[in-house]
Order: sequence, then structure tokens, then C-alpha cells
Amino acid sequence: MVEKVFESSDDVRHATPLKYARTVTFDGPVRLELGGQLPSVTVTFETYGHLNADKSNAVLVCHAISGDSHVAKHNDADDPGWWDIVVGPGKPIDTGRYFVICPNLLGGCRGTTGPSSTNPKTGKPYGRDFPAITVGDMVALHGQLLDHLGIQRLLACVGGSMGGHQALTLATRFPDRVAGVAALATSPRLTSQALAFDVVGRNAILRDPHYHGGQYYDKPTGPNVGLAIARMIGHITYLSQESMSQKFDATRLQPRDVAVEFEKKFSVGSYLGYQGQKFVERFDANSYMVLSMAMDLFDLGGTPQELAATFAHAKCRWLIISFSSDWLFPPFQSRDMVNALIANNAAVSYCNVQSRCGHDAFLLPDDLASYGELLRAFLANLTGKPLGDVVEEKPSHGPTSIFHKRRVDYDRIVELIPPGASVLDLGCGRGGLLRRVKQKKHHRVVGIELDEKLVLGGIYRGLDIIQADLNQGLVAFADKQFDCVLLSQTLQAIYDVEGVINEMLRVGRQCIVSFPNMAYRDLRKMLAEQGRAPKAAGLLRFEWYNSPNIRFLSIADFEDFCQSHNIRIHKQLAFNTEEDTEVTDNPNLNADLAIFVISRD
Amino acid sequence: MVEKVFESSDDVRHATPLKYARTVTFDGPVRLELGGQLPSVTVTFETYGHLNADKSNAVLVCHAISGDSHVAKHNDADDPGWWDIVVGPGKPIDTGRYFVICPNLLGGCRGTTGPSSTNPKTGKPYGRDFPAITVGDMVALHGQLLDHLGIQRLLACVGGSMGGHQALTLATRFPDRVAGVAALATSPRLTSQALAFDVVGRNAILRDPHYHGGQYYDKPTGPNVGLAIARMIGHITYLSQESMSQKFDATRLQPRDVAVEFEKKFSVGSYLGYQGQKFVERFDANSYMVLSMAMDLFDLGGTPQELAATFAHAKCRWLIISFSSDWLFPPFQSRDMVNALIANNAAVSYCNVQSRCGHDAFLLPDDLASYGELLRAFLANLTGKPLGDVVEEKPSHGPTSIFHKRRVDYDRIVELIPPGASVLDLGCGRGGLLRRVKQKKHHRVVGIELDEKLVLGGIYRGLDIIQADLNQGLVAFADKQFDCVLLSQTLQAIYDVEGVINEMLRVGRQCIVSFPNMAYRDLRKMLAEQGRAPKAAGLLRFEWYNSPNIRFLSIADFEDFCQSHNIRIHKQLAFNTEEDTEVTDNPNLNADLAIFVISRD
Repeated sequence: MVEKVFESSDDVRHATPLKYARTVTFDGPVRLELGGQLPSVTVTFETYGHLNADKSNAVLVCHAISGDSHVAKHNDADDPGWWDIVVGPGKPIDTGRYFVICPNLLGGCRGTTGPSSTNPKTGKPYGRDFPAITVGDMVALHGQLLDHLGIQRLLACVGGSMGGHQALTLATRFPDRVAGVAALATSPRLTSQALAFDVVGRNAILRDPHYHGGQYYDKPTGPNVGLAIARMIGHITYLSQESMSQKFDATRLQPRDVAVEFEKKFSVGSYLGYQGQKFVERFDANSYMVLSMAMDLFDLGGTPQELAATFAHAKCRWLIISFSSDWLFPPFQSRDMVNALIANNAAVSYCNVQSRCGHDAFLLPDDLASYGELLRAFLANLTGKPLGDVVEEKPSHGPTSIFHKRRVDYDRIVELIPPGASVLDLGCGRGGLLRRVKQKKHHRVVGIELDEKLVLGGIYRGLDIIQADLNQGLVAFADKQFDCVLLSQTLQAIYDVEGVINEMLRVGRQCIVSFPNMAYRDLRKMLAEQGRAPKAAGLLRFEWYNSPNIRFLSIADFEDFCQSHNIRIHKQLAFNTEEDTEVTDNPNLNADLAIFVISRD
Repeated sequence: MVEKVFESSDDVRHATPLKYARTVTFDGPVRLELGGQLPSVTVTFETYGHLNADKSNAVLVCHAISGDSHVAKHNDADDPGWWDIVVGPGKPIDTGRYFVICPNLLGGCRGTTGPSSTNPKTGKPYGRDFPAITVGDMVALHGQLLDHLGIQRLLACVGGSMGGHQALTLATRFPDRVAGVAALATSPRLTSQALAFDVVGRNAILRDPHYHGGQYYDKPTGPNVGLAIARMIGHITYLSQESMSQKFDATRLQPRDVAVEFEKKFSVGSYLGYQGQKFVERFDANSYMVLSMAMDLFDLGGTPQELAATFAHAKCRWLIISFSSDWLFPPFQSRDMVNALIANNAAVSYCNVQSRCGHDAFLLPDDLASYGELLRAFLANLTGKPLGDVVEEKPSHGPTSIFHKRRVDYDRIVELIPPGASVLDLGCGRGGLLRRVKQKKHHRVVGIELDEKLVLGGIYRGLDIIQADLNQGLVAFADKQFDCVLLSQTLQAIYDVEGVINEMLRVGRQCIVSFPNMAYRDLRKMLAEQGRAPKAAGLLRFEWYNSPNIRFLSIADFEDFCQSHNIRIHKQLAFNTEEDTEVTDNPNLNADLAIFVISRD
């Protein structure tokens, strides 16, 4: 095992110097998952910040297919890194707080052993003799690197796209080595569509006459056209339709004058030609073949059951982030993973960031205020010191995000939850109620919220929040998975009332529902005497035409509903929130808010 | 000008025999839009059914990039056509009623003059000497064919994808030659994303060493790899992510054993390899280059203004159909066209068919019940004989589709519309009210409806219906574009009340709004005396938890709303629908339904 500071580009094809990279060589044979082996493996990596005394602040960043160890610049004079906006002093992955490690991948061409490295047996590059590798092999090597650095357990592993695949694999293969995994724009396996694009790219390389069966290193020309075609295809899939439109529509027929031998009729054509050619200058075709095949073979499971079984090995806390316009790794794939983690009662937060940037969104500044802050909050939660309340913004009044104030009914809901119960809060907002529940030492506390900003607010407060639309149901959750499900002052904003109530009764042993009572005395009067739609302070303060409330019911209506839907009422409480008192005398007339404890049995 | 029955494949590269194809040769020189010319042009075409005596039943079907003249089989023994499910006796384009013509495209390789045809000057195939062509050139040739057939004016021109481009061009270039255009899965121009895929495909051909600058016809091998790569890319873009998942997920690692020299690791790979190779056997690479470039250059306008200016030349009636999962020609592009047609006061119907099949949906049976019936109804409307009421289904209760019954308030709404006024009905359902309005000889009558089935129902009735969600606004419509806008018994089902009312007041000189009155005596009593959410017959017959109605207002509330929003009330009527009487005494108490005539000024 030899470590040296990386100085020359001898081992690296098409490399610009990586001034701060280090290498370590592990003697082999290194046995690989698919049966191959390598006599030895060299890893090139870079580190940032300082490892603390108890070695508890290490964050491993895994790069995607065309990345390298240079995740960020080491100082102002250094070359730009590929994730400078995320990694650095004061950045979301704050190198002032965390010790960041980023290795080049096994199979790559930027210093770590790959097809362009010298095969000691022949003295020539491996070429197609380089054995097939898997994401598991890459991650096993990450493990060896951590051993070498004396790090037993990472605070976190972070990765996007194929970097996400590595992070997911680390969590499931080496559960004791990582406290938290943040996986961005990734998936449990490629969609058939994404796989198809990779296949076409590899075919373009494979059938390039200059490929020479992979032994092109001593030839005057490699499979440059094939690799450029593969990169062009890839590039399109990394962008969204919207972002391409933004970039190219206005200059459609005004291509840039680039010196490439590809079609240059359209602006998007000159761009792709240039990108393709630039990639050929810095990347090795065999590396591309080997890495894209490893990505295509990556498969954590094709069914919810398989996925849950894979994730069952993990012990970490999770942050899953998808991007709405990412069609290569579509958001539903992240939701599949979240659902599998939920099935395992794993601690997981999820957000589908509204973005126009497609798959590349996690590399771009456009949505950094969302995904960057989610990362920052998640890492802080892993250290046990949540960042706390974000600056209080105007309360959101979206359909599933009624603003929670401290009130008498809140205290009663918290009291109604059985000691030690696991709790799911539907429409949890920024987690005001949930945080109070958690402070009572409930062992498992999860919130569901639709609004992206509120999700972030909840995670800032140290909670596990899953972004979801209640109207879509609670498919992720198993029958009776929670002791107690809360639906606090949200019922009246839900379109599919029967669906949501049925789902919460399925998922919770007991459910606590609170809602405003439309038959409250003052409201009755308003309609009966003034002939106007009822309106009141608090939840009913809106006008008929702009209220988030779209369902109007009385306590008596809800009692009828429970009876007709075979719902058992365990307890019902009523309040006059204006007077901040509990109401026992004729609640349907005298109370403006009701709390029901119900269950299916 | 010579016509002969097409017998041999002499002029056709890679052709299987087209038994019923005919050809006609037009002597040139044929001058082309981009400056080139051809000494003569041969068109291969097929016809179906019989031209009627007044030559008013001709339907031109335009094929997409890889199609040909064989749109359907001519009899049971004939080879399958590419649109057998749509064209034939009793089919949506009923060859028992219509005379169907389908020509192979200029630039193609299935009998019509293209790059593989013999250049009379050299005695060899044109190859890359074939001049650049446009969709306009293709359509000009369609015009010559129609002249040859003695058809002055088509009943309709129908096309999907690039076939749609031709149909749109015919309507705008030769407005007197077509009564109706049905354009499916098409666009005013390609998105930059779609363009990018074409560029990569052409690069794969162009840089294939066997391309030989396009003069490969006398070489042992043509650019087969490049063409196959281009086809594979194309094929992926024709399918949706969902349909590929359905096709390949289950057999991911079980490729079919096909004899192709492409990667066969995955099932999707063996499929694409096979498709690529099959295409090479039947298609000419230069044709692909020429046709895809013509498609990429097609551009009816990049802004709403440009598009509207292009469409201003057209005189026909329109049916625009998009497919929800089509990401190559995304639905928003069809909506852009519909909006431009609306701006021109053109007669247009639009439906975005909910489909899992992607761009190819218009060729597949899955959604035929939608797009096929839309086509059938549209063609019938063009003959002046609408198919009439579809079998009455259960009324839909979606947010913008309250079921209309014949009632006193309907009669009053029809009476309230000024004579000859142009009328827009928001949430028109199956067009029950609108049809009655139309019968009063209003010159322009348009309906908006969200539910796909109801849209079809309205078109069956001979109406122009545009599928749209009212909550998204009326962006397509200009200020004061309609004399009268109707919002009949729909207000209470709209979430964004202020948005929709503002929009209707912007678009209509006058607006007629009807809604149920929540302060009706019986409803007041229900809340005041029984303590239950008001419910009644008719529109308010639903339960609080499953009602399509999500806004509750009284007549007094609406009066207040008008005052606070600077809305002028011209007239207000009230009804007791149970008694079927008009109410003048204290309507806010005695009426259960109100009609307001309002305007912004």
C-alpha cells in the first residue's frame, strides 16, 4: 500500500493536473463481484477540511459517471471543482465543519484504476481486458479507502445520479459505516428508457471502426465519433425539455462556429458537437463503456418488496431528493425508494424539488436554495444539532398546510397520544405540532407535507418529513404501521375526504382528527340571519372565494360519517377556540373546533 | 405526365411490393423552396374507397417520416397497412364514406422521388446531390397530385407527427383546398430537445465511414450502423417511459436472441438492435437525412404572434389531438397551436388524450376509442351531418362538468344572450346548453370542458370543444374576444374563483354566471335547526365529503363579491328550481339558483 501525492498525469488519460489529489494503491488480487479480479488497485482521491478528533465528521461524496475526485476547488487559485456550489467553507456541505472525501471511481480514467490503466501483466492498457465491474465493487473500494484514512464510520455519504447509486449501496452493504445517506436525482435501478439510451451510446462506441475491440490505445485514432455520439445522447438526457428550450430556442438557426466535424445547422447541434468533442478529449471510451454498464446493471429491486428487502440491511438516516423535471431518473423512482424505506420504518426525509433543470439540477445553482439547504439541514440533524427554526415566513395556506398555532386543542392532541406511540402527522406544515410530540419522547415521529418550503422548515427542526400529496393516498404505508395518525385541522382542505380518511384508518391503529365545526352558533346565525356564507376567525377567516377550505362539516355531520363508514369513535372533544375553553354542553352548537379519536375497529 | 400502376420495385430501394400503388410523374423542372430543383418528380400513392360525384368526400392522409403510401390494406389478402385500425370500411376514416388518398413523401424511398431515385443527369442515384427539401415542397406536390386526381377541395387532410406538419402546411398554404384538418401528435415546430435527437441521429449517419459523402449506392455496404443508431434513438423517443417499462422491465436481463451485431445484454437492447437493423433493410439513409432535416426546418412560428400570423391564412375547421405521454411532440405544443387558432377565431376542437403510449399513441390501438372517435366525429361534422348524441352515459361530476338538465334557468340563459352574439361556454359538459345556443344561429359558439369523454360528446354533437382546465385560466383568449361568456352552474366547483371570474370578464363583453344559492330557505334551516351541512336536490345533492362543489356562496355573497371586485351587475335573476319558477321576492331567501349578467365595465 503506497500513498503519494498525485503529481503527474502519467496514469491518467486526457487529464488536466489534479493539483491536490492523492493516490493510494491497494495490493491485490482485488476480487470483483462478477468474477473478475485485478492484481492491484490505485485510488485517486481528494479531501477537504479537517477530520475531527473522534473522526465523526467525515462526509464521502460520490461522483457520477463523468465526474472525478475534484469535487471542489481547494482555494481561490485552484481549478474549479464540479460541485463548488455545494462543497466548501460555509457551503451546504461545509468544509469548515466536515471532512470531505471524494475519490475517483473504480473503472474511471482520472487516476483510479480503469481500462486505460496499465495492466501489469502486459505492460499495456487493460482496454477491453478490464474486467466487468459493479457499483458494489466501487463501493467496496470506497470502504478500503476509508480504512486507509482510519475512518470507521462516516457521518454521511452524499451522491447524485450514479453517485447516488454508490451512496445507496454503501448504506445497504456497509450499514455500520454510515450514519446518514443523502441521495439526489437517483434511482433503485435505471428505467428501461434510461437503459435504452445507454445501450445506444455503447453501440455507437462498439461499432465505431476505430474501437478495434477496445485495444485502440496504440492506434492513431480511438472511437472518438462513437464516444462523442454517446456523450451527445447522454447530454440531451441530462437536460430537460424546458431547459433546452430556454438555451436554444431563441438562437435556433444561429449555431456557434465551433471547429467540430458534426452537423452545425442548428444552435443545439453546434452545442452538442462541441460537448461531444470536448468529452472525447477528457474521457476514455472504455471507461465510459465499463461505468455505464455498471450503472445499467445496478439494481436494488424491481418491486416494492425487493426494494424493501434490500433496504432492510441499512441502519442510517436518509434524505432522498428528486427533481420534478428529471426525466432520466424520474421522481417516481425516488418515491419508490422512499416507500420502501417507509415500509422498513427507516428514518427518511424526501423532497421532490420543483425544478426546470432536469437531471443535471443537482449540479446547477438554480435550485440550490432547495436541495442545498435540505443537504445542510440533513447533515446538521445527523450531528444531533438541528439548525432550528428557519426565519418565520408568512404561513402557507395550501390545501394540506394549514398554519398551526399553539392552542388549547394542540395541548389536548398531544395528551391524547398514547405514551411511546409512533406518530404520523398528515399535513404537518413546518412541524410545529410534531416537534411537540417528539419532545415527549415518542420513538418514531414522521410528518407528511406537500409544500416544499414547509418540508424544508420541518427538516431544519430536526424532523423526518416526507413530501407527499394526501389526496394521492398513503400507499407507502402498511396497515397499522403507526400507533397514531394525526390529521390536525387539515380535513376541511382535502378534496378526497373518503380516500384520505380510509387511508389514515388503514395505516393508524388510532387516528386523531380535528376540524372546524360549521354548525357553531355564530356560523349558523351568519347563514340563517344574514344569508351569507359562514365565516369566522381562525381557520374560517377566509372568504368563500379564496379559502383553502373546500369541505364544510359539522360535528354532527362527522358523527354521521363515522356511523355510515363503520368508523369507531373512541373519544370526542370540542372547543371554543375564541374563548380557549373545552365545550361539553351541546358541542355541535357551542364549539367551533372538534377533536375525534377514531379507529377502524 | 404519365401514370402507371406501380408494379416493380425498380425505383424503390428496399421495398416490399406495394400491390395497389399507382404512380404519376410530373415533368419539371420542379422548383424547390430552398433553391434547388428536380428535373421531374414521380409520386407513388394509394387510394381507398370511391370519390363521390361532386368530389366532396376526399380525405388526404399524410404519413410520418418512416411511413409510406400503404396506409391500410385494400382487402383481407393484402399486406397490413400502417394505419389499418383507423382507415378502412367502418373505421374512423371510413373508406365506405370517404375517398382516401395516401401518397409517399417527396424525398422518401418508397416510390416517390427521393435521394435513392435515379438522377436523369447522371444515370445514378441522386445521393447527397438530392436537393434540400421542405415540408412545403412535400405539400406542393400533394397539391399537384390532387390536381391530377381532379380534386379541387379536400374534405379533410389528416396526419400525425410529420404527417401533421404536412396537414398544417396544406391548410395555411392552400386554404381553399381543404375543409378540415385533423393534426395528431404534432407541433408548430420541433422542440429543441426533439431537434437535438435528430441532430445526433444524422451525425451518426454522417460520420459512419460507410456513408461516403452520401454516394454509397454502388458500395458493398452503406451507412448501416449510423442509420441503425439513428433509428434506435428515434425509436426511444417514439415510446413513453411508461410503455418502455411495460414492455421491458419484466424481462430486463432476458434479451431475445436476435442476429444483430449490437449489444444484446438487456431485453431493450436486443429489441433496439433488431429494430435498427430492420429499418436499415427497408429505408434509405439519405432519405432519412433529407426527411429529418425537412422536419427540423419546419417552423410555423416560435411565438404566439408568429403562429397566429401563420394560421391567419387558413380557412378550415380544425381538430387538434395530443397525447399526454408524448414527450417528443409534447401536448403544450398542440395547445400553442390551439391558442393561436383561437386568437384567429378559427373553428377548432382540441383534446389531449390521456395515454400511456407516448408519441406513437396515434398509431396504436390503445387509445383508439378516444382519438379514433374524435376523428370520426370531426369528419362527420365536416360533411355537415354530425353523428349526434353519443349513447348517454352517467353524467360526470368532475370539477368543471356539472351535468346540465333542461330547466327554466336554461331557457332564461339562452334568452339573455344578445342575438347573434359570439358565445363561449366554460365547463360546457357534453354541450347541452351550447347546442341550444347554437340552434339560435349564433355565429360563433365555443365550449371549454376538461373531461375527455364529454369533449368527445360535444364534438359528436357538431360543436367545437376545447379541452382545458378552467383553473389554468383563459390565456388563449383575447380581451373581449366573445360577446358573451357563460359559466353555468360551474362556479361552485372551481377552486380559483377570483382567477376564473377575472378571466371570463376579460374575455367576454358580457358574462352570464349561474350558481346555487346557499342561503336558500331550506338550506339555512338545515344548518340552523339541524346543525348539518346544507344539502338539497339538484346541484347540492351530494354529501359534504364527496361533493364536486367546493365553494359555497349566497346571492348576497355574490353581490358583495361584485361590489368589492368592481364588477358591474347588469341583471340578476333568481329561481326556485324545485318549483320551476322565477323568484322576485327576497331571492336570497326564496331562490335556490341565481343567474347574474355581469361585465367588467
